[in-house]
Amino acid sequence: MKSLLSVCDVKNEVKEILDLANEFKHGSIKNKPLDGKSLAMIFQKSSTRTRVSFEVGMYELGGNALFLSDNDLQMGRGEPISDTAKVLSRYVDGIMIRATEHKDLVEFEKIATVPIINGLSNLEHPCQTLADMQTVKEHKGDFDGKFVYVGDGNNVCNSLLLISACLGMDIAVACPKTYQPNEKIMKKAKTIAKESDSNVTITDNVELAVKDADVVYTDVWVSMGNEKEQGKRKKALGKYQVNSKLMKLACDDAIFMHCLPAIRGEEVTADVIDGENSVIIDQAENRLHSQKSVLYHLLK
Amino acid sequence: MKSLLSVCDVKNEVKEILDLANEFKHGSIKNKPLDGKSLAMIFQKSSTRTRVSFEVGMYELGGNALFLSDNDLQMGRGEPISDTAKVLSRYVDGIMIRATEHKDLVEFEKIATVPIINGLSNLEHPCQTLADMQTVKEHKGDFDGKFVYVGDGNNVCNSLLLISACLGMDIAVACPKTYQPNEKIMKKAKTIAKESDSNVTITDNVELAVKDADVVYTDVWVSMGNEKEQGKRKKALGKYQVNSKLMKLACDDAIFMHCLPAIRGEEVTADVIDGENSVIIDQAENRLHSQKSVLYHLLK
Amino acid sequence: MKSLLSVCDVKNEVKEILDLANEFKHGSIKNKPLDGKSLAMIFQKSSTRTRVSFEVGMYELGGNALFLSDNDLQMGRGEPISDTAKVLSRYVDGIMIRATEHKDLVEFEKIATVPIINGLSNLEHPCQTLADMQTVKEHKGDFDGKFVYVGDGNNVCNSLLLISACLGMDIAVACPKTYQPNEKIMKKAKTIAKESDSNVTITDNVELAVKDADVVYTDVWVSMGNEKEQGKRKKALGKYQVNSKLMKLACDDAIFMHCLPAIRGEEVTADVIDGENSVIIDQAENRLHSQKSVLYHLLK
Repeated sequence: MKSLLSVCDVKNEVKEILDLANEFKHGSIKNKPLDGKSLAMIFQKSSTRTRVSFEVGMYELGGNALFLSDNDLQMGRGEPISDTAKVLSRYVDGIMIRATEHKDLVEFEKIATVPIINGLSNLEHPCQTLADMQTVKEHKGDFDGKFVYVGDGNNVCNSLLLISACLGMDIAVACPKTYQPNEKIMKKAKTIAKESDSNVTITDNVELAVKDADVVYTDVWVSMGNEKEQGKRKKALGKYQVNSKLMKLACDDAIFMHCLPAIRGEEVTADVIDGENSVIIDQAENRLHSQKSVLYHLLK
Repeated sequence: MKSLLSVCDVKNEVKEILDLANEFKHGSIKNKPLDGKSLAMIFQKSSTRTRVSFEVGMYELGGNALFLSDNDLQMGRGEPISDTAKVLSRYVDGIMIRATEHKDLVEFEKIATVPIINGLSNLEHPCQTLADMQTVKEHKGDFDGKFVYVGDGNNVCNSLLLISACLGMDIAVACPKTYQPNEKIMKKAKTIAKESDSNVTITDNVELAVKDADVVYTDVWVSMGNEKEQGKRKKALGKYQVNSKLMKLACDDAIFMHCLPAIRGEEVTADVIDGENSVIIDQAENRLHSQKSVLYHLLK
Repeated sequence: MKSLLSVCDVKNEVKEILDLANEFKHGSIKNKPLDGKSLAMIFQKSSTRTRVSFEVGMYELGGNALFLSDNDLQMGRGEPISDTAKVLSRYVDGIMIRATEHKDLVEFEKIATVPIINGLSNLEHPCQTLADMQTVKEHKGDFDGKFVYVGDGNNVCNSLLLISACLGMDIAVACPKTYQPNEKIMKKAKTIAKESDSNVTITDNVELAVKDADVVYTDVWVSMGNEKEQGKRKKALGKYQVNSKLMKLACDDAIFMHCLPAIRGEEVTADVIDGENSVIIDQAENRLHSQKSVLYHLLK
């Protein structure tokens, strides 16, 4: 891969990336492979996990990460993306962007001459889902089970559809008809799933979806930028709450996942997210290891 | 110690920490003992000295410091402290917090699995007072003299009471009855002072307190967060100004201390703070050395 | 030099600095000469190039850069410059300041005990013009040609006048009578030009100035802080736009320069700034190399 904007960019290397992530986690790589390399991190939205995990990851690889908020950049004051992309490409070895608009990311990548990493856009969140799949592998041993995403068909859901298909893991998405995943991505996921001989199901029947699940995943109903739709969203998504009653439909040893931050009492109840089958902290930790793997692949 | 929330956490190691601080200052430690270690720094209030001294300190020890303002963190947008504490513990080796509420710090420390450092809270400022005592040792040679704090019985005053008692140095606090130090801390300091055979005096008689002082210390009357009480505070604290008349009551070679920032003409006059007995810049510098010592003890 | 506030500070070393910048660019220096050194960077105005190039530059030299915005510093909340200057001098090995007022920079430098670097003030932008002259040397081979600055007689223009004179390069500035460069600087540049046997011309006749130019340089008409004068400035500067018609008066192989950010359609048309003779990206890149040279000279 040259950049990581979409899960599709790592379609052929996803297993290799997860294997290396696992090696980073267990400390088998000790030297500083990115010594002398710099990563610019541009944040158009605020962040905890993405920012800290990338910054620590670069440092642990021997490199340097620069935190640039929109306020700090002239780009926030009207400088064309193309000028910023060209100039930054001369200063740094890679650029991570948390972008409001996925199309800005695509434009930036076309012009930049260094690798670009999607650190969350309105369309996809590939880094999150690499960490998610590292976590599934750790807790379930393989990708043979049933992965279920419940709730808003957002950027995380889009990337989960694609990565499940790439890894040959069956995925079911339970969401209201009005908050389905991106249509092109659903199509793309189905095409990839055919190649990897796995299933992609989209349904508004949450009970059917969660039945016999090995993994149950949800995310907030109101993502950053959707604050205006709050009332409408809570109404439409109300019956997609992950609670202990719903979890009973899943396998006994099903794990619960969430990319955080979470709102207890909305998309998930406290007993589930703070219960013994919840793996949310491992999942957050794996951001660090899987991103180190991505950085190694792109910047080495 | 496992964390540094209060001076009490270093009660038994305070001399050892000051000795190592002195070694760092005089350059006898040259290797990079914290190579590969990361420190997250969370600032709920702005800062010059704390931020720069921690960031440079970590770098000089071979480590890496991440500056996280409340704006950058999801915690500022309603994420529970417990989630942030658990997740950050997976990414970094220690966390420094400048907290509005000391109780948040305590909650954070209970849940975190890495050491937590109090970089100023409404209750204590232990890092400041370690630097202060390093400065006293440098300029006076020992802790046998009389330490006097004049003015608002704030967080710095609280930590000074405790650290003086730990080191067996006599301390007198001169403050209005309405702005006394924290009651529990006064009690605690008196208990520790008994063990170390030293005296703790709280009085509203500023002349009596400063008489024969070896160290005269003050701080701003209106700390961050107290802006609304400005008028009331200035009135109550007016006669606690440290000026040349007051300094005449102290020993001839008494040093003047202030943790900065200072407002000349309020809690201290310019001739005193900028005079030849003022050691405020050494005191600020020692933040760097004493915190390196704390970081070494906690993160090595 | 002890500090770099004005181009005048490097009058005698400018060629040496540009030579070292070139060595850094072509990778002949591989070790980490600033290992263990820290640079504080204070930004009173936002920045892309200055911030990223200094931060990456310090890292590539083995050192550490701290990004301090006005919001982060107590200085932004009324702490006297002198206290900040004295304290920071104890923590770091050098300080770069992007200052609203040049006089604050001068005051800071008088009190600080470490080197100060002007990262842009209302009077000068010496770091930019070192990068500019490195770019001229790369593209034209020497400083024998004619350098023409068109538009607002601002801080960049002031520093270009001085550096051209130092290097013995003829310079013409075409600007409205109401937006001429600083008077003292024009005088100073003429004095230096006499010594280096070169010419300094200030004119409001843009066609005359650009005739036979080897370099045509412009900058935005409304710099940060001048937003209120926007209408007035656009009117006065309208006929100083660099467009293809104006560029025809210059030599066929004249290069176009701009320090960015640029507003296409105002001070320069898109066909010129995005045309084949534009060297703006090389110019931006050279900020990194020339500043590494400055940092090496000042902090080694």
